[in-house]
Amino acid sequence: MNFELSDTLLELQQKTRDFIRNEIIPMEADPRFDSHGPHESLRRDLIEKARAAGLLTPHASREMGGLGLTHIEKAIVFEEAGYSWLGPTALNIHAPDEGNIHLMEEVATPAQKERWLRPQVEGHIRSCFAMTEPDPGAGADPSMLRTTATRDGKGYRINGRKWFITGADGASYAIIMARTEDGNATMFLADMDQPGIRLERNMDAMDSCFTGGHGVLVFDNLYVPEEDILGELGKGFRYAQVRLAPARLTHCMRWLGQARRANDAAVEYASRRHAFGKPLAEHEGVGFMLADNDMDIHTARLHIWHTAWLLDKGERCNFESSRAKVVCSEAEWRVVDRCVQILGGQGVTAEKEVMRIFTDMRAFRIYDGPSEVHRWSMARKIVHAAQKAREAAAAQQGGQA
Amino acid sequence: MNFELSDTLLELQQKTRDFIRNEIIPMEADPRFDSHGPHESLRRDLIEKARAAGLLTPHASREMGGLGLTHIEKAIVFEEAGYSWLGPTALNIHAPDEGNIHLMEEVATPAQKERWLRPQVEGHIRSCFAMTEPDPGAGADPSMLRTTATRDGKGYRINGRKWFITGADGASYAIIMARTEDGNATMFLADMDQPGIRLERNMDAMDSCFTGGHGVLVFDNLYVPEEDILGELGKGFRYAQVRLAPARLTHCMRWLGQARRANDAAVEYASRRHAFGKPLAEHEGVGFMLADNDMDIHTARLHIWHTAWLLDKGERCNFESSRAKVVCSEAEWRVVDRCVQILGGQGVTAEKEVMRIFTDMRAFRIYDGPSEVHRWSMARKIVHAAQKAREAAAAQQGGQA
Amino acid sequence: MNFELSDTLLELQQKTRDFIRNEIIPMEADPRFDSHGPHESLRRDLIEKARAAGLLTPHASREMGGLGLTHIEKAIVFEEAGYSWLGPTALNIHAPDEGNIHLMEEVATPAQKERWLRPQVEGHIRSCFAMTEPDPGAGADPSMLRTTATRDGKGYRINGRKWFITGADGASYAIIMARTEDGNATMFLADMDQPGIRLERNMDAMDSCFTGGHGVLVFDNLYVPEEDILGELGKGFRYAQVRLAPARLTHCMRWLGQARRANDAAVEYASRRHAFGKPLAEHEGVGFMLADNDMDIHTARLHIWHTAWLLDKGERCNFESSRAKVVCSEAEWRVVDRCVQILGGQGVTAEKEVMRIFTDMRAFRIYDGPSEVHRWSMARKIVHAAQKAREAAAAQQGGQA
Amino acid sequence: MNFELSDTLLELQQKTRDFIRNEIIPMEADPRFDSHGPHESLRRDLIEKARAAGLLTPHASREMGGLGLTHIEKAIVFEEAGYSWLGPTALNIHAPDEGNIHLMEEVATPAQKERWLRPQVEGHIRSCFAMTEPDPGAGADPSMLRTTATRDGKGYRINGRKWFITGADGASYAIIMARTEDGNATMFLADMDQPGIRLERNMDAMDSCFTGGHGVLVFDNLYVPEEDILGELGKGFRYAQVRLAPARLTHCMRWLGQARRANDAAVEYASRRHAFGKPLAEHEGVGFMLADNDMDIHTARLHIWHTAWLLDKGERCNFESSRAKVVCSEAEWRVVDRCVQILGGQGVTAEKEVMRIFTDMRAFRIYDGPSEVHRWSMARKIVHAAQKAREAAAAQQGGQA
Repeated sequence: MNFELSDTLLELQQKTRDFIRNEIIPMEADPRFDSHGPHESLRRDLIEKARAAGLLTPHASREMGGLGLTHIEKAIVFEEAGYSWLGPTALNIHAPDEGNIHLMEEVATPAQKERWLRPQVEGHIRSCFAMTEPDPGAGADPSMLRTTATRDGKGYRINGRKWFITGADGASYAIIMARTEDGNATMFLADMDQPGIRLERNMDAMDSCFTGGHGVLVFDNLYVPEEDILGELGKGFRYAQVRLAPARLTHCMRWLGQARRANDAAVEYASRRHAFGKPLAEHEGVGFMLADNDMDIHTARLHIWHTAWLLDKGERCNFESSRAKVVCSEAEWRVVDRCVQILGGQGVTAEKEVMRIFTDMRAFRIYDGPSEVHRWSMARKIVHAAQKAREAAAAQQGGQA
Repeated sequence: MNFELSDTLLELQQKTRDFIRNEIIPMEADPRFDSHGPHESLRRDLIEKARAAGLLTPHASREMGGLGLTHIEKAIVFEEAGYSWLGPTALNIHAPDEGNIHLMEEVATPAQKERWLRPQVEGHIRSCFAMTEPDPGAGADPSMLRTTATRDGKGYRINGRKWFITGADGASYAIIMARTEDGNATMFLADMDQPGIRLERNMDAMDSCFTGGHGVLVFDNLYVPEEDILGELGKGFRYAQVRLAPARLTHCMRWLGQARRANDAAVEYASRRHAFGKPLAEHEGVGFMLADNDMDIHTARLHIWHTAWLLDKGERCNFESSRAKVVCSEAEWRVVDRCVQILGGQGVTAEKEVMRIFTDMRAFRIYDGPSEVHRWSMARKIVHAAQKAREAAAAQQGGQA
Repeated sequence: MNFELSDTLLELQQKTRDFIRNEIIPMEADPRFDSHGPHESLRRDLIEKARAAGLLTPHASREMGGLGLTHIEKAIVFEEAGYSWLGPTALNIHAPDEGNIHLMEEVATPAQKERWLRPQVEGHIRSCFAMTEPDPGAGADPSMLRTTATRDGKGYRINGRKWFITGADGASYAIIMARTEDGNATMFLADMDQPGIRLERNMDAMDSCFTGGHGVLVFDNLYVPEEDILGELGKGFRYAQVRLAPARLTHCMRWLGQARRANDAAVEYASRRHAFGKPLAEHEGVGFMLADNDMDIHTARLHIWHTAWLLDKGERCNFESSRAKVVCSEAEWRVVDRCVQILGGQGVTAEKEVMRIFTDMRAFRIYDGPSEVHRWSMARKIVHAAQKAREAAAAQQGGQA
Repeated sequence: MNFELSDTLLELQQKTRDFIRNEIIPMEADPRFDSHGPHESLRRDLIEKARAAGLLTPHASREMGGLGLTHIEKAIVFEEAGYSWLGPTALNIHAPDEGNIHLMEEVATPAQKERWLRPQVEGHIRSCFAMTEPDPGAGADPSMLRTTATRDGKGYRINGRKWFITGADGASYAIIMARTEDGNATMFLADMDQPGIRLERNMDAMDSCFTGGHGVLVFDNLYVPEEDILGELGKGFRYAQVRLAPARLTHCMRWLGQARRANDAAVEYASRRHAFGKPLAEHEGVGFMLADNDMDIHTARLHIWHTAWLLDKGERCNFESSRAKVVCSEAEWRVVDRCVQILGGQGVTAEKEVMRIFTDMRAFRIYDGPSEVHRWSMARKIVHAAQKAREAAAAQQGGQA
């Protein structure tokens, strides 16, 4: 066992850290920003900076123009990128593009890759992932999927409605999950500028770090030709898992960077600001929060690293990525909530960066499966393993008798 | 012991509840609203509704035109008003006016009351309370006060800077805490339209429920004549306590209403929305959150009632109002955080009212003393009482020997 | 609303407090004590002290020889009695006798009362409540009851096995829950010295405050004549509810006394013992625990009082007694756990009384329904109420249309 | 980065696991056990089993007869040993001997090693570490040390009193911390059978897993010749740190084994026992506890591994071992507390092994520094680092100006 990072990786870490500090954090004051995230023109400026620094889309394969990072390498680089809320946008590793790129690499045909993936890896276009539906459709429970794909000649007609579609506004293409007549789910690729797709509205969300915000999409008889199916017919839910396990973990990585950023602000303030005769941090009530932050940050990082290592070994990590997602989203949230508390009035106003991190991060305990769904899923797997172990033991005893 | 409410109070509760539901909640969709709270014109419309309903400024004395509510009665009425985020504005019981009215009733001269208090009770004007200062001035530790009041003829010249001054923008008068040359703190009254007062800027805050938001005020040689001192010279900190103990408790009451509102939304959603084959609420992971919400809401209510009863008995309640403030601000926050979690995507967007309650409420764990300062203060009193009891026991034993 | 206690009740409180301090706490060093609780001879000495003080079995009706306390009065007296772990034994208000006395008062025939209840109220005999069964029988889920009662002439033959039967060893009579051939549950009364009842063994438990400990009982063709049925045939589960709602609450009361005892020890130690240059309590890390203890103790007390008041009004309080049980058992446990932590080495050894309170109290989060069962039950009621309210609203709208 | 264990280490893990399961767990029913831990004769039998298995004192150097395990290797082996509460005794890796062996290896002279260390490594004798003193002496704050060492000819006379001295009863030698006339602390070695050492009494503790329990020692003019000083004069506190950082971590390792044991029992029970129509574990209220246990166990393990790796690299790890100690002691405690809750009545009685683990483990949050002292110490280091970084940045800016 060895927690040592290679010299190459340490260099990449330092390079990313410097890039974020010197190039990206100064851009945080750029006014091209609103409640639906950075404007497209700001996004493009950020992308050019990362391209110049050789840090653009680092998780994409070298074939596609990325750095072909392993999961462990992503853990290091994405945490650094996450230190600024503009960092993931700059490096082109923000949700949902990061996960979509991964999925396209795994499943798309060469033609699909050239058409959609390559320009996306190059930062020229964005995408969205159209899965979640309004009640009573698919939410935490994907099996409730109601969007339909009906055979029509050499293609399909898609009808339905999706919401919470991150980055829909301004995306060039969508990956759409729909149910075919046999009841199975399939993923479809579609350019967003077609008449059958309509952005009904943008939602007013607590976060504002995703370019394009979160939108409501309507598919009204959208035609998708056969060759634009992503992967095989009927394998939609399987591909969703392919996308989800690593995507959950990259959320953990990026938000860890934000938690560290908030904590740095809290440490700075608490070690400088005086009250009742000494620096805040020398009051144990505050000092203990700093200690707890350190523990939570380290806990999150260790879980990320361990799960990344398993993914690099080729394991599917359904259980482990659920566990890491719950541990990290809750630990990182506690960190940020404590930072708000330490900063007092400055924690609940834009005087400090922490308020933004707080409102940006809250949804992380919900998306890609709320904590409750992951705990439930973990429990089922724990019980299932126990029951199988018991049966195996019984069978062995039976055999011996 | 008796938790029974009088028939009169039950009627007032029902009347307030109906008023909020029928008159005020429909106004929540009114567009005269921005990140600095309801616009003045919206505020005035709300005030007129409350006036028509006979519910305006109910905590003010009957002499001043209020209903002269006791603290217990406030507990009932303010919780109902708090059910809508516009309710406290409508009833003229929002911070900081609610506490300022209370303070003015206790301390102001008849002339001061006629000049400032009466129009405020009638809802015509608003006020602000200028105490908190930028680092290194007074924050959680009021003894760090740096704003000065220097004797000048028959009055004082005030110089200094304040921030997080709720409702400063649009307030007609301010209560200003400043330090005179002898080192003591004094409260001064001043009209806001004087040249010596400048609203430097409005702060960008997480909440948006207070008319006028939170501002930065600069006092630049502001002249205050002797007769505009509030109460006696040098008693500023004492009056702050007079204001704070009940003011903390009224925050608990109003936010309890908001917590109940959030919980009603969560119960409604969880008992209707299905996932994994049954209503959300029948999943224990969600059901347990609903049970915990019920416990926390009831806990907060009981602490409010008990402290209000003590205040009605004439006790100062420094300890008890600290305790109620910590218990309620943390319990009510847990409720709202759980509601966000239960509502999922709808909890972190404006699809439901809960997102607003979440961002509005976070600061409650901070203002009027963050939880940490109250816990510290409680601990000191607990230890002090223990030490006195030990000395008393020792003295008694000594006497017996 | 009024939290005032009557002068009579305040006198009774003071009398009980003095009695516990002067008469009972000195008995805590009595060696007639082992891991199965106080020996019968110690119990009898304690009972005589309470009889002399006029405090014996105060919750029993005046007809039976008690003081006929209301629930509110019990809240005051039982908390005081609970301050010593011998107090409930002395006052004859310990589980299971306290609840059994209540049940017998409600349901037993005059003849049954004379035979079993009167000597029990007088402290001459003890009883046990035989409900819980070994896996796969009745535990948290009473519907899994497996003990059978088969008609035999003018009576019934009872067969089955019970465990965790508190006070079984040395009890004079048992209330036995068994299932008759029609599937319904019935309660039977039986003297413990009959051949059909056998105490298989005493269990080795974490607590040691109950006289007789916790035993395993075997019913082997035990004959119970018809006249020894408690109440009506088939109403066993209903009577269990009659017993449980108040019995849960009296646990909350007694353990509140124990929590206060632990807290007094922690406050005393923390305000006296020095470390790192000042008393422990002046370290916020310790002081905050004292503040939290105060909050939890007060929260528990308020929930007890409120639920007691509802019971006195004649409400069934299934929901409220569940809520109070969860809130109190968890709050009181947190108090005691913090006291252990504050006392350090002395908290985990018999140097202080807190270790005993810690090990005695842990089971409270489990018996009379573990927290999880209560939360589940509360959630069901919350949802049910929401669904009924929705139906009512829909019906009303329908009627209006 | 790489979490892979070498084949050799995997073999050692499996060997230890099998040894514990096949040889040691069956001994748990051995009656040679009381509230002061395993009897010496039982300890010797266990030691012989480990010797036969080649697993005795595996952390000692090969020179002294151990396996010379690295810290990472200890993490693996000690967790396995900890699975049974007799495991650490069998492997001779229980506190305080484990830490004393480590300290003696680091500091003792060759002659001291031959005299005390070698027989201890061979399992023939036990030792104790005499540091903690009754109030007002050294506890969590070692600087309050009051035991004195007064120069007397070629040696020292030691006077003082120690308590909570684990394993004192039956130990062959003691490491004694005392203060010389210059105010510095020094460690002395002394055979326990000397007239100047008296075991005043054994303490009645919540745990019962340490051979010899916890005793009160009196040093009454104990003579220690110069050559029995451990290390250098005046370096007592420094050596205490040498002992403590790894000793804290080995506690984390052993208790992790116990937490896993408790969890296995809870998983087994919850997946088999039915209530309300399905296995307990399929109730989310229980299933979520199992998921949380998995998270906590994994968190503890990752912190242990990471800190062990740092120790293997030669770092002092004062900060990291504090952090790991707090994280692990609290996470492992939560696991065991949840297991008690899941097991219900069987969790608070000796029907299952979990009750013993619960009462054995509670003190872990206290000894080797309570959580509060570690959080305080961590906070100081965090603040110190922040202040140094700020000064460095200021100096750099000053230099540039």
